[in-house]
Amino acid sequence: MSSLLTVPKRLILGRARRSDRADDTLLPKRLALPVFAADPVSSVAYATQELLVILALGGTAALVLAPEVAVAVCVVVAVVVLSYGPLVRAYPGGGGSFAVASRNLGPRAGLVAAAALLVDYTLTVAVSAAAAIDNLVSVLPTLDSARIPLAVAAVLLVMVVNLRGRHEAGWSAMVPVYAFVVVIGVLVVTGLVRWASGDTPTAASAGFELDRSTDLTAVALALVVLRSFAGGGAALAGVDAIANGVPAMRSPKGRNAALTLVGVGATTVLLFGGVLALAVVSGVTVARDSCDLQGLPTDCARFTQQTVLAQLAEAVFGPGSIGAVLVAVVTVAVLLAAANSAFNGFPLLAATLADSGYLPRQLARRGDRLAHSNGILVLALGAVAVLLVLEARVGPLLDLYLVGLFTSFTLAQVGMARHWGTRLRTARRADRRAPVAGRALAVLAAVCTGSVLAVLLVVKVPNGAWASVLVMVLLGLAMHRIHRHYDEVAEEVALPEGEGPEPMPARVHAVVLVSRLHRPVTRALAYARATRPSTLEAVTVATDPAAARELSEEWARRRVTVPLRVLDSPFREVTRPLTEHVRQLRARGPRDVVTVFLPEYVVAHWWEALLHNRSNLWLRARLAATPGVMVVSVPWQLASAVADGDLAARAAGERTLVQEAARTGAADSDRRPHA
Amino acid sequence: MSSLLTVPKRLILGRARRSDRADDTLLPKRLALPVFAADPVSSVAYATQELLVILALGGTAALVLAPEVAVAVCVVVAVVVLSYGPLVRAYPGGGGSFAVASRNLGPRAGLVAAAALLVDYTLTVAVSAAAAIDNLVSVLPTLDSARIPLAVAAVLLVMVVNLRGRHEAGWSAMVPVYAFVVVIGVLVVTGLVRWASGDTPTAASAGFELDRSTDLTAVALALVVLRSFAGGGAALAGVDAIANGVPAMRSPKGRNAALTLVGVGATTVLLFGGVLALAVVSGVTVARDSCDLQGLPTDCARFTQQTVLAQLAEAVFGPGSIGAVLVAVVTVAVLLAAANSAFNGFPLLAATLADSGYLPRQLARRGDRLAHSNGILVLALGAVAVLLVLEARVGPLLDLYLVGLFTSFTLAQVGMARHWGTRLRTARRADRRAPVAGRALAVLAAVCTGSVLAVLLVVKVPNGAWASVLVMVLLGLAMHRIHRHYDEVAEEVALPEGEGPEPMPARVHAVVLVSRLHRPVTRALAYARATRPSTLEAVTVATDPAAARELSEEWARRRVTVPLRVLDSPFREVTRPLTEHVRQLRARGPRDVVTVFLPEYVVAHWWEALLHNRSNLWLRARLAATPGVMVVSVPWQLASAVADGDLAARAAGERTLVQEAARTGAADSDRRPHA
Repeated sequence: MSSLLTVPKRLILGRARRSDRADDTLLPKRLALPVFAADPVSSVAYATQELLVILALGGTAALVLAPEVAVAVCVVVAVVVLSYGPLVRAYPGGGGSFAVASRNLGPRAGLVAAAALLVDYTLTVAVSAAAAIDNLVSVLPTLDSARIPLAVAAVLLVMVVNLRGRHEAGWSAMVPVYAFVVVIGVLVVTGLVRWASGDTPTAASAGFELDRSTDLTAVALALVVLRSFAGGGAALAGVDAIANGVPAMRSPKGRNAALTLVGVGATTVLLFGGVLALAVVSGVTVARDSCDLQGLPTDCARFTQQTVLAQLAEAVFGPGSIGAVLVAVVTVAVLLAAANSAFNGFPLLAATLADSGYLPRQLARRGDRLAHSNGILVLALGAVAVLLVLEARVGPLLDLYLVGLFTSFTLAQVGMARHWGTRLRTARRADRRAPVAGRALAVLAAVCTGSVLAVLLVVKVPNGAWASVLVMVLLGLAMHRIHRHYDEVAEEVALPEGEGPEPMPARVHAVVLVSRLHRPVTRALAYARATRPSTLEAVTVATDPAAARELSEEWARRRVTVPLRVLDSPFREVTRPLTEHVRQLRARGPRDVVTVFLPEYVVAHWWEALLHNRSNLWLRARLAATPGVMVVSVPWQLASAVADGDLAARAAGERTLVQEAARTGAADSDRRPHA
Repeated sequence: MSSLLTVPKRLILGRARRSDRADDTLLPKRLALPVFAADPVSSVAYATQELLVILALGGTAALVLAPEVAVAVCVVVAVVVLSYGPLVRAYPGGGGSFAVASRNLGPRAGLVAAAALLVDYTLTVAVSAAAAIDNLVSVLPTLDSARIPLAVAAVLLVMVVNLRGRHEAGWSAMVPVYAFVVVIGVLVVTGLVRWASGDTPTAASAGFELDRSTDLTAVALALVVLRSFAGGGAALAGVDAIANGVPAMRSPKGRNAALTLVGVGATTVLLFGGVLALAVVSGVTVARDSCDLQGLPTDCARFTQQTVLAQLAEAVFGPGSIGAVLVAVVTVAVLLAAANSAFNGFPLLAATLADSGYLPRQLARRGDRLAHSNGILVLALGAVAVLLVLEARVGPLLDLYLVGLFTSFTLAQVGMARHWGTRLRTARRADRRAPVAGRALAVLAAVCTGSVLAVLLVVKVPNGAWASVLVMVLLGLAMHRIHRHYDEVAEEVALPEGEGPEPMPARVHAVVLVSRLHRPVTRALAYARATRPSTLEAVTVATDPAAARELSEEWARRRVTVPLRVLDSPFREVTRPLTEHVRQLRARGPRDVVTVFLPEYVVAHWWEALLHNRSNLWLRARLAATPGVMVVSVPWQLASAVADGDLAARAAGERTLVQEAARTGAADSDRRPHA
C-alpha cells in the first residue's frame, strides 16, 4: 500500500529532507511577522463582526455603544500585547503560556494552559476556515450551499502546505498578510475620508431593522455589552502563538519575538478600530440569524448575510468593483494564512509536550520534510471534526474558542506576575525597576484577561462553550495520565547500574501452530527446527474435530517427523486451549521459555488481508500477555504479493535511497558479524 | 479487554454451547412455520400500504383499480409459493435460489442470486424495523422524532436475540406470528362483517383529498398501476428464506418445507386480500408525503400519517381501544419476528458461501452459542447502515428491496425450468408427468416474477433502486474475486504428494532491534541467544543521531557482549534502513534466514497501546514482505498489565474451562514431548 502512496506523497510534499538541514528552517523576521501575525491581523475579519452581531442582540440601544466597546477591546489588546513582550524575553525557549504557567504556577496549571492552547489552535483553524468561506460566499453567493465542504477543503489545503515543511508555509503566509493590511488600510482610509468629506458610504444592510424590542433591562443590556466585548476579544487570537513560536525565530530570539509582537499588536488595533468605525458610520446591520432582521429583500431563510468586510468593500468601492473583489480575495487569503499559523504552533507545542512525556511520543517525531507530520495530521483532523459538528458557523466556533484563549492568557499573566515577584525578592535595590514594572504590567494584563474570562464563563459557558471547557479538562487529565504512565514504565524497565546480563532461558519449547498441512507450515517447521529448541511439536486446535482427524491422518501418512498434538476445543475457540497449553509447557521449568511459531500469509492487497490470518491478530495479543513466551511470525509471501509491480518498484526505490545514504557517509559503528 | 466483555457477553448470550449439541437446534414444524412465516405474513403490514401509497400517486382514478391490483398480487404470490414446493423437494440441502441457480444456470448466475439474497436479507431487516417503528409511532405519536434511533435499537435487539442461538430465536418468533394472524384475522372479519351489515367502518383519513390532478395519461396511469403491483409484490418477502432454511428443518426436510410454504402462502394471501379490501371500503387515504394530502387537521409538515393497519384498527375497534393497541402490539412484534427470520437466513447462506470459498472464512465459523456470530454481526451492521442512510423510511427501503427480491425469484424459477427440462430428457415415458407439470409451473412462475422484475427495472431503478443493483453487482464481483483468490492460494501452498520436508535453513542471522537500553531489551537479547543463531547483533536506527551516540556510549560502558550496529537514517525512517540491512544479511547465503527480534510492551488498557509499539506495526508488515525473515515479538508485560485484576480473573476462568474440557474427555492425540 505504501508504494501506491509514495508517488503522490512526493508530488504533494516534495523531496524528503535530511535531518542536518534543520537549521535552514528557522525564520527571519520578515517571515516571522506574517507567519505569526496572520492570526491576530485576520481576526479583524471576524472580531469586528462578532462584536456587532452580539451588540445587535441588544437592539439599537446597545448598538450605540459600539465605539465604547471597541475602545475597550483595543485597550485590552494593547495591554496584553505589551505584557507579552517581557514574557517572550524571559522565555526565549518557547512554550508561551504553557511554559510560563508550568514554571511559575506548577505542572497542573501548565497542563491546563497546554490543554487550552491545543484546543485553541484547533479552533483557530476551524474559525479561520469558516470565516474564509463566509467571505468567499459574500462575493459568490451560489456557493452558500457548499459552505461546510468548502471549509473542510480549506483545512485540508493548509494541512498539505504544512506537511511540505515550514519554509514554504512561511512564504505562503507573507503575501496574504501584507496584502490584507494594505488593502484593508486603503479601504478604511478611503471610507473614513469620504465620511469626513460628507460623502458617507452606505452599507447594503443599512436599511435593515433589528427585529428586537429595544427596552432591555439595564442588566440584560450590560450582559450584551460584556458578551460583545468578549467577542471582540477574538482580536487577541494568535498573540500566544508568537510566544509559542519563539524557538522558530532567528537569534536574538527574545528581542525579535518582542518586536514582532509590538508590530502585530499595533497593526491589529489600527485595523480593528478602523473597520469598526467605518462599519458604524456606514450603518452595517448584521445579526447572528438573518431572520432577526427586518426589511430583507427576500425570505429570511434564503437570505445570506454578507460579512462586515464585504459590505464595507461594496459600500466604499461599489458592488462588483475590483476593490470589492480584492477585499474578498485578501480576506480569504489572510484567514487561510491564520489557519496556517496554527499549523505552525500546534505541532511545535505538541512536540514539546510529547518530549516531556505528556503526549504520545510519535507527536515528537519529525516527518521526512522535517515538519512534525503527526501533529499536523492531528490538528487537521480535530479542526475538520469541529467544523462538521458546528456546521462551519463562525459564531458558535468563536464561543468555544474564546474560553480557551482567555484561559491561557490569564494563566500566562498570573504566571508572569509570580515570575517578577520571585525576581523582585532576589534582586538588588538598583535592579528593582524592571521587575516592578514587569509585575505591574503583568498584574494589569491579568486583571484585563481575567475579567474577560469571567465574563465569558458567565455568558458563554451556558451557551455551549461548556464543550470547550470539558475538552480542556479531559485533555488535561489525559496528559497527566500519559505522563504518569510513561514515568512508571521508565522506572519499571530501567536497568540498574552494575546489573549483569539477563540470565539465559534454561530450555526453549517450540510450538508450531498448524491448521492444515501445506507449504507455509512445512517452512515454519523447518525454521522452528533451525532455532534448535529443547522440545518441538506441532499443535492444532480441533475447532472442527473431523478436520483435525483428517489432519492427523495426513500427518501420519506423510511421515512428518515433528509430532502433532491435537488440542480439544469443545467451544470452537483457538486462543484459550493454545494459551493454556503454552502455560503448561512453561510450567515444566521456572526458567523455561516457549516459542510459538505462527505461519502467516503476506498478501498484496488490503482486501486480501481480510481473507487470511484474522484469528492470528487476537491470538498474538493473548499469547503476548502470557509471561515467558516469544511469538514468531513465519511469513509466506503469496505469489501475488511477490509478483506485485509496486512491491518490486518499492524495493528498487529503497535500494537507491540507501545507496544514497551510504554515499553521503552513513556511520556504521560496527560491521563485524557476531558468531 | 476481552475480560471486561466476558461477563456482559455471558449475561446477554447465555452459556457457551458444546459443538456436539448442534442437532438440538434443528427446527420442528410448529417452530419452523413461525420462524420462516414471520417475513411473508408480516409483509401484509407494509405491502398493502405500499400498494395504496403508489396507487395514490395516480390520484382517485388509479385508486379505483386497487382491487384488481390486489388480485394480481395474490395470483403472483400463489404461483410463486406453489412453484417453490417442487424446488424445496428437489433441493433439500438448502440454499434456495442460490443453489438452484448455481446448479442449473452456472456459477455466475448463482453468484448473482447469492448477492441478491444477501442484499435482500439485509433490507428485510431494515424494512421490518422501519415498519415496526412506523406502527409504534401510529399509536405513540410523541415518539415520531426518535424514529431512526428506535429502528436501529430494534435491529440491535433482534441481533442480540440471535447471538443467543437459534432455539431461543425460534420460540421468540412463534408467539408474535400466531398472535398477528389471529388478531388481524379478527380485525378483517369484524370489519367486513360490519361493512356487509351496512355499518361500514370509516378510517380517520377517509376525509383527506389527494392533492393530485386526476387526468393522468393512460401511460402514466398504467405505470402507476404497475409500480403499485410491484410494490404489492413485497408480500412475497421471505418465501425464498424458507427454501434457504430447509437444512434447519427436521426430516423429512423437503416435505416439511413444502407444507410450511403452502401454509404460509395461504395465510399471506388471505390476510393481504382482507386488509386491502377493508382499507378500500373504509376509505383509507395514504400518501408517501403527507403534504400530498389535503384536508389535514394541522400543518402537513407536522402531520404524522398512521399506518394502514393502525387506521383500520381504529376504524373497526375505535381510537384508543384495547383492540387498536393490540393490533399495534402484534404488528410491531411480527415485524421484529420478520427481521429475526432474516437473522436466521443470512448467516446460514453466508456460511454456505464461506464454506465454498466465496466469502471470508470467518463467516463459516460458529460462535460459542453455535450461532454463526460473524454473519449475525455483519447483517446487523448492514441493516443499521441502510436504516441510517435512508432515514428509516419504508418506501425507499422497499424500492431497494424489491429489485433484489425479484431478481432471486426469477433466477430460481428459470433454474427450476432448466432443472425439469434436464429431467425430462432423461425420464422414461411413464415418469414424464411430474417433470412436465413441474416445468409448466416453473415457466409460469418465471414469467410472473420476470415481468414484475421488468416492471421494477423500468419504474424503480431510476428512482434510486440503482443502489441496490450496484451493491448486488459489486458483491457478486467481490465473491468471484474472493473465490479465485482462495483457489490460487490453495494451489500455491499445496504440498505435492511424496515431497520431502522443507530443507533446513543454512544459517540463522539474529537481529535484535533496540532503541534504548532497558530490561525489555536485555531480555530480548537473552532470548535471542537462547535460539543459538549463527550470528547475533543488536541494531539501532539513528533517527536521532544524538540519542544513537548516547546509546552506543551506554552500550560500551555497560560492556554488553552483543555488538551494537547503528544504522544511519538521514530521513528519520526506521523501516527502510532496517529492511535493507536484513536483505544484506540474508544475501550472505542463498539458504540463510534472518530472525528479527522486536521487544514489545504488553499493556493493560487500550489507551496505553496508543503510547507504545506504534512503529512496530508498520515495521512488522514491511519485514514480513521481505523473503526469508522471521519476526519475533519478545513481549514485556508491564506491571499494570500483570497486576490487572481482570487479567488474573480471566486466567483463572480459562483454567476452569480447560479443566472442564479435560474432564469431559478431551482427546490429546500425542502427549510425548519431543526433544
